Amino acid sequence: MREGDHVVPIFNGECGDCAHCKNAGTNLCARYRVDPFKSVMVGDGGTRFSAAASDGGRCPVYHFLNTSTFSEYTVLDAACVVKINPAAPLDRMCLLSCGISTGVGAAWNTANVTEGSTIAIFGLGAVGLAVAEGARYKKASKIIGVDINPEKFALGKKMGITDFVNPGVNEKPAHEVIREMTNGGVDYSFECAGSLDVLREAFLSTHDGWGLTVMLGIHPTPRMLPFHPMEMFDGRRLVASVFGDFKGKSQLPEFAEKCIHGEERINLDGFITHEMPFAEINEAFELLQEGKALRCMLRL
Amino acid sequence: MREGDHVVPIFNGECGDCAHCKNAGTNLCARYRVDPFKSVMVGDGGTRFSAAASDGGRCPVYHFLNTSTFSEYTVLDAACVVKINPAAPLDRMCLLSCGISTGVGAAWNTANVTEGSTIAIFGLGAVGLAVAEGARYKKASKIIGVDINPEKFALGKKMGITDFVNPGVNEKPAHEVIREMTNGGVDYSFECAGSLDVLREAFLSTHDGWGLTVMLGIHPTPRMLPFHPMEMFDGRRLVASVFGDFKGKSQLPEFAEKCIHGEERINLDGFITHEMPFAEINEAFELLQEGKALRCMLRL
Ligand SMILES: NC(=O)c1ccc[n+]([C@@H]2O[C@H](COP(=O)([O-])OP(=O)(O)OC[C@H]3O[C@@H](n4cnc5c(N)ncnc54)[C@H](O)[C@@H]3O)[C@@H](O)[C@H]2O)c1
Ligand SMILES: NC(=O)c1ccc[n+]([C@@H]2O[C@H](COP(=O)([O-])OP(=O)(O)OC[C@H]3O[C@@H](n4cnc5c(N)ncnc54)[C@H](O)[C@@H]3O)[C@@H](O)[C@H]2O)c1
Ligand SMILES: [Zn+2]
Ligand SMILES: [Zn+2]
Repeated sequence: MREGDHVVPIFNGECGDCAHCKNAGTNLCARYRVDPFKSVMVGDGGTRFSAAASDGGRCPVYHFLNTSTFSEYTVLDAACVVKINPAAPLDRMCLLSCGISTGVGAAWNTANVTEGSTIAIFGLGAVGLAVAEGARYKKASKIIGVDINPEKFALGKKMGITDFVNPGVNEKPAHEVIREMTNGGVDYSFECAGSLDVLREAFLSTHDGWGLTVMLGIHPTPRMLPFHPMEMFDGRRLVASVFGDFKGKSQLPEFAEKCIHGEERINLDGFITHEMPFAEINEAFELLQEGKALRCMLRL
Repeated sequence: MREGDHVVPIFNGECGDCAHCKNAGTNLCARYRVDPFKSVMVGDGGTRFSAAASDGGRCPVYHFLNTSTFSEYTVLDAACVVKINPAAPLDRMCLLSCGISTGVGAAWNTANVTEGSTIAIFGLGAVGLAVAEGARYKKASKIIGVDINPEKFALGKKMGITDFVNPGVNEKPAHEVIREMTNGGVDYSFECAGSLDVLREAFLSTHDGWGLTVMLGIHPTPRMLPFHPMEMFDGRRLVASVFGDFKGKSQLPEFAEKCIHGEERINLDGFITHEMPFAEINEAFELLQEGKALRCMLRL
């Protein structure tokens, strides 16, 4: 890499050298994998930010998720910076840093969605809709979107959602509705809401024998997995996916190309629902939390 | 099939016609899959056994696990009978009806153990030792056996176990011992004890990033799976396996051949630790429960 390169920061880095990076079966680098509790640079355990302290000196400001990108300038380990095609529009490529790669990658890499298969996506934020976009790209035959916020349904249609289920208005649990719609259950379901109750519905909405549930939601809860061991013997499987199982440095450049070229490309535009000045970052977070925005583009 | 054929009964049947049977990804036939609560013939919902009742008439005796083989004669659905090579010794082939196919198949089909990989097996009954035999056949480099009964260790050596861990005498939990022995954890672990505490140890003994735990033990407990959802994001996976993911009717005949031919064949002899008359079936069960027998051959 050199000055002027077009790059995308990634929260789940790839050193390329460790046993994990050399193993095709994982994208969890031993040194630079995502770790919400890590607040320093891996190399020297220090931070590269500081702020004026009340005593007139400087106090350290710590790093977040390997990238620390809520700022105009940042310092990242090279393992967390991906060089991409300079022709790619940066104001779209930034989406590849997290949610969109996570969702599309979950469909492509973790589940390996195949043509004609059926999908249910629980939670239609940017991550869930990116799963839909990835499944649409792979020609899934039915992509069922599940959300308690009906405003997500209009947005979802553009990303390939073919059917909607709103658990808030149905009398039956979502998994029963979905099993009826799909002759026994979907081939793949994706949990993108960050709720264990939703995870259970996602699991039960897959077909017995071969259904696969991909867990994407983050679950900051003391609760354990809500499955009885014997339920696993019905042939439904559960797997978690970090960053859509993309190895960031080695695989994101090619993914970026699939977002730029061709009529059947991954469509990034729909994910940016708002553009606003950087100073309004807190308003942007409110829009996200209220479910009004998918992603807000902040301009300096 | 015709009179005189040599057959093996299977508790997990295969009709060959349903959507499940036609799907290469599952061995759970829609009609004849194992179901401990099913006590009748699938076709007509009736039973084929009866016994003298106290009123001088007959009362029904129900079927068990599709096979009802604790008797000299039985009636099975054709989906639960596998025709095998008549040259194969029947007093060994009966082992393929359950535990040995389950264990070997878990290594071959569910986990797909590869040459040079590392394995930990929790619970060295017939199922666990069959996993070892299957992994030995596939040339795994290290096969760690874990059991609280040290008498299983001598038996296990013949089935390819290379290292032993007895959690009853170690100060550290088994998964810590195993991680130290294997530079971070095994590639595959197998739970063959029927205990959720053991399942947790098995899960944690695999390598983060790519470890796979295969659950074989049956868990008649009200407890749920003992994993926090965020633990799944370390790249360890958990999957359950019924009958070693063998499709009984279509795949057991070939498996039987692998138990008969070649120097590197699957060795069945070691699994039969006792031979006794059928009348001593209750003593045989006691030997099993006390951990003194792997399998007892009952002769009429
Ligand atoms: N695994 C990873 O690598 C990774 C990466 C990025 C984000 N995430 C996680 O993915 C999840 C989704 O992220 P996002 O940015 O799309 O979030 P978001 O908040 O924008 O979207 C969540 C959606 O779930 C819906 N929802 C909430 N409760 C629901 C319920 N009971 N039933 C159905 N739908 C419900 C909401 O209405 C919303 O549309 C979060 O938990 C996030 O932390 C994981
Ligand atoms: N999934 C399937 O299709 C399938 C098929 C057959 C059997 N099973 C199940 O597989 C399991 C094993 O069957 P088996 O016939 O080998 O049983 P078994 O009772 O002969 O063997 C169990 C072994 O586990 C050991 N053990 C018990 N507690 C332990 C602990 N805390 N730590 C380590 N080891 C411990 C015992 O000493 C014993 O050697 C049972 O639960 C059985 O129901 C499942
Ligand atoms: Zn690495
Ligand atoms: Zn069938």
